[in-house]
Amino acid sequence: MSNFSSLYAFGLGIGTRNAKGEWLEVYFPTPLLNPPDALIQQLAPLLGYTEGNHWITVEGAAKDALSRLNDETIQTLVRSPKPLIAVFLGQDLPPEGVPDSYLKLHLLSHRQIKPRGTDLTGIFRVLPNVAWTSDGPVDPEELPARQLAARIEGRTLKVHALDKFPPMLDYVVPSGVRIADGARVRLGAYLGSGTTVMQEGFINFNAGTEGPNMVEGRVSSSVWVGAGSDLGGGCSTMGILSGGNATPLSVGKSCLLGANAGLGIPLGDGCTIEAGLYLTAGTKVQVLDRTGETVKTVKARDLAGKPHLLFRRNSLTGTIECLPTQHAIELNADLHA
Amino acid sequence: MSNFSSLYAFGLGIGTRNAKGEWLEVYFPTPLLNPPDALIQQLAPLLGYTEGNHWITVEGAAKDALSRLNDETIQTLVRSPKPLIAVFLGQDLPPEGVPDSYLKLHLLSHRQIKPRGTDLTGIFRVLPNVAWTSDGPVDPEELPARQLAARIEGRTLKVHALDKFPPMLDYVVPSGVRIADGARVRLGAYLGSGTTVMQEGFINFNAGTEGPNMVEGRVSSSVWVGAGSDLGGGCSTMGILSGGNATPLSVGKSCLLGANAGLGIPLGDGCTIEAGLYLTAGTKVQVLDRTGETVKTVKARDLAGKPHLLFRRNSLTGTIECLPTQHAIELNADLHA
Amino acid sequence: MSNFSSLYAFGLGIGTRNAKGEWLEVYFPTPLLNPPDALIQQLAPLLGYTEGNHWITVEGAAKDALSRLNDETIQTLVRSPKPLIAVFLGQDLPPEGVPDSYLKLHLLSHRQIKPRGTDLTGIFRVLPNVAWTSDGPVDPEELPARQLAARIEGRTLKVHALDKFPPMLDYVVPSGVRIADGARVRLGAYLGSGTTVMQEGFINFNAGTEGPNMVEGRVSSSVWVGAGSDLGGGCSTMGILSGGNATPLSVGKSCLLGANAGLGIPLGDGCTIEAGLYLTAGTKVQVLDRTGETVKTVKARDLAGKPHLLFRRNSLTGTIECLPTQHAIELNADLHA
Repeated sequence: MSNFSSLYAFGLGIGTRNAKGEWLEVYFPTPLLNPPDALIQQLAPLLGYTEGNHWITVEGAAKDALSRLNDETIQTLVRSPKPLIAVFLGQDLPPEGVPDSYLKLHLLSHRQIKPRGTDLTGIFRVLPNVAWTSDGPVDPEELPARQLAARIEGRTLKVHALDKFPPMLDYVVPSGVRIADGARVRLGAYLGSGTTVMQEGFINFNAGTEGPNMVEGRVSSSVWVGAGSDLGGGCSTMGILSGGNATPLSVGKSCLLGANAGLGIPLGDGCTIEAGLYLTAGTKVQVLDRTGETVKTVKARDLAGKPHLLFRRNSLTGTIECLPTQHAIELNADLHA
Repeated sequence: MSNFSSLYAFGLGIGTRNAKGEWLEVYFPTPLLNPPDALIQQLAPLLGYTEGNHWITVEGAAKDALSRLNDETIQTLVRSPKPLIAVFLGQDLPPEGVPDSYLKLHLLSHRQIKPRGTDLTGIFRVLPNVAWTSDGPVDPEELPARQLAARIEGRTLKVHALDKFPPMLDYVVPSGVRIADGARVRLGAYLGSGTTVMQEGFINFNAGTEGPNMVEGRVSSSVWVGAGSDLGGGCSTMGILSGGNATPLSVGKSCLLGANAGLGIPLGDGCTIEAGLYLTAGTKVQVLDRTGETVKTVKARDLAGKPHLLFRRNSLTGTIECLPTQHAIELNADLHA
Repeated sequence: MSNFSSLYAFGLGIGTRNAKGEWLEVYFPTPLLNPPDALIQQLAPLLGYTEGNHWITVEGAAKDALSRLNDETIQTLVRSPKPLIAVFLGQDLPPEGVPDSYLKLHLLSHRQIKPRGTDLTGIFRVLPNVAWTSDGPVDPEELPARQLAARIEGRTLKVHALDKFPPMLDYVVPSGVRIADGARVRLGAYLGSGTTVMQEGFINFNAGTEGPNMVEGRVSSSVWVGAGSDLGGGCSTMGILSGGNATPLSVGKSCLLGANAGLGIPLGDGCTIEAGLYLTAGTKVQVLDRTGETVKTVKARDLAGKPHLLFRRNSLTGTIECLPTQHAIELNADLHA
């Protein structure tokens, strides 16, 4: 009998396939990182898994075998008319298709993996574009016919989005969070407990917050925000996917990014960027001491990760200045209770 | 017989309760500020109300009694399978639960109360987080089971938001307004007639516009915008809930906040903030006279409420300047007809 | 027999009328610019069209006649219970109502007409405000009764928007595009193949992209974005509808507008605006040569359309500078494949 003790991840899900039989999306109610050996020992022979990274469409005898297991979620899943799929990941390798990609995205949003903690290399190439509609996921090629048919019936087929990633909330609802507009948090985002994402907030896949946090700005892919930090309305964090840096950014604990501010460097704990100031890695910054005297001029990237700094643009001279600060922000307890 | 002449507010509504019987939300089709005495004299004995701030679930004999009243809305409400509730507010006190909170939020959006005109102290603590789904409001704790059940049936339960406040348009549709994305105006917002909120606009609860107004930026909680003012795309107004001031902000009449600008002080009538400029209360500003000579240097907060000022950042010196201006903006009549 | 060889446009659609019989919206599955003469020769006598710009509600005998034509889309349309309408536009004139407005908006989104390529004068006056709901388009005056009725049934009538323009994706789904939030692209937007509109992106009607493009900022009405350009998160382009210029803006090919930047002039090819910098037409700019020496000071509008320029604000002096650059951006091929 095989030894499955090192299995990276496992998920049993139901999903949607297009007319060609290709997977568009998979929903895993209880995805597992490092699944218990006993479970895999039990399932592998039923589903024909031996080793490696594989997904198996569960039909016929295999489905019958599953239905006899004493597991409520499994018994629920096998009753669905939707196609059933089991994904076994022996190792953390770049995703090869929709099923393993979706399993990893689920694990991130279920807080089992931290952002940048799993290999998502090439995920844009393996995920198809999907129309997320009021009738569920639809292949964009099949959409015009579906839209016409709905119109003819007197209905509007609402197309919420046309995207490779669905909204997280339609798959995973983490405990202790608020998200004022579900369209703005992608599946694969990691939201720590106590995170509030306002209407203007945004969190991409493979990015997230430690919690508690107030997010009214944009958390780009690969960015990590430390506990207690507040991202003001419309603020920007540079991602690594387009127009950004090679180094993934992070925001330390108890930081404040002011409204409409921007960040292009990893920020240390207890730092503040003044509202409206965009700090790119190459920005030249005048460093002041506690008395307000200029100490030196450096590029912002040289201040990466340093704690307790206040960045502001002097409104009389136009100079971007960096001052030491002990002022740490505190989130409004009412908003994050 | 009691004297109800001083009753603050009354509403009869239908709502949603979770599995524990706790209210998640209440919809009041015709909420009343200072309801007519005669109405309350008639309803109070039927519903068992005597005095104070109370809400009463209407069932059994009370419901039968209501159904015999000659009032079309009431007759419609009692026919609903949804639980029926009457909310009597003797005085304007901090909300104690979902029913009185929702009544006050309705009154704001029905333009019966201006922002900051009713006591909302502690509303974040009394409002539960709710999943606003395509199947209606759901308690987040009950959501995963509901989502799984929908998936099993082959449906996606769309979770539009997970928030303490619902979108206004699902409860109140004020006359003479346009809202390009309903997700961005919360119940409890006050939109004066002639207000257009574009896709990038946002209006929080207990905030609003006098109308007509163009809103392509963010109106934070407690902010009031005067008639004829234009908030450019992505502009920010500092709120008092997080990261902001103790003093609620306002924007005067006929002001222009340029795109991506920001405001941290109460702004007088006829003022303009240049696109991209963030004016916080502590910003030092050089005040110029009509000839362009520097008169003095002040903090922006010292200019709070003063009319006909233009704020800009000199693009050659980086200095934030304030000039007198008689240039008042005019909204595009076509957009606000 | 008439000569229809110069017909500007034709569409056969189904739509929604309010209780007064006024059109709220029309859906045209296959709108035609310069329709083939043969088609019009065939349809005109059946529908009673002779010349000019007219729309004709198709009922009774005319509908029967259409149903006998050997055309699959027409046969599908006539089977709908929704009212059927034929729109014949002899010339490109300002729209006179909902049917011709919607036909032109469809033609834009179907990439048959470029932005600013058709006469939309006065379209705000002829389009009614519509509630776009989960039950389809509803006249705002009829909405409160519909909302109450839905609530009584225990349903929430979701009001996605209250606007003159619907989301493009509910009418037209162009090939080769991604739109992460359908609420942010209006019908009448033109999205070239390879365009990705992220959650923070926005494209108004009569505006668009040549494709491929990354759009994380706002493309205002009448703005055109050249191939290969990247609009960073939250960036702004000034429109001509409100608060903007008389001259419509454009962005050249292979430009980068940094996150939270802004544009108030037509931008030439290969230009970059630094993150966080708002360049209005009247902004004074110091022009530097390749050695960093100041050449002259001009207003930004004098640099309109000039290629290969980098705009930045010197972070030590606060001066907005313009430098020659040969650095052209490249979109991430994975994101636009």
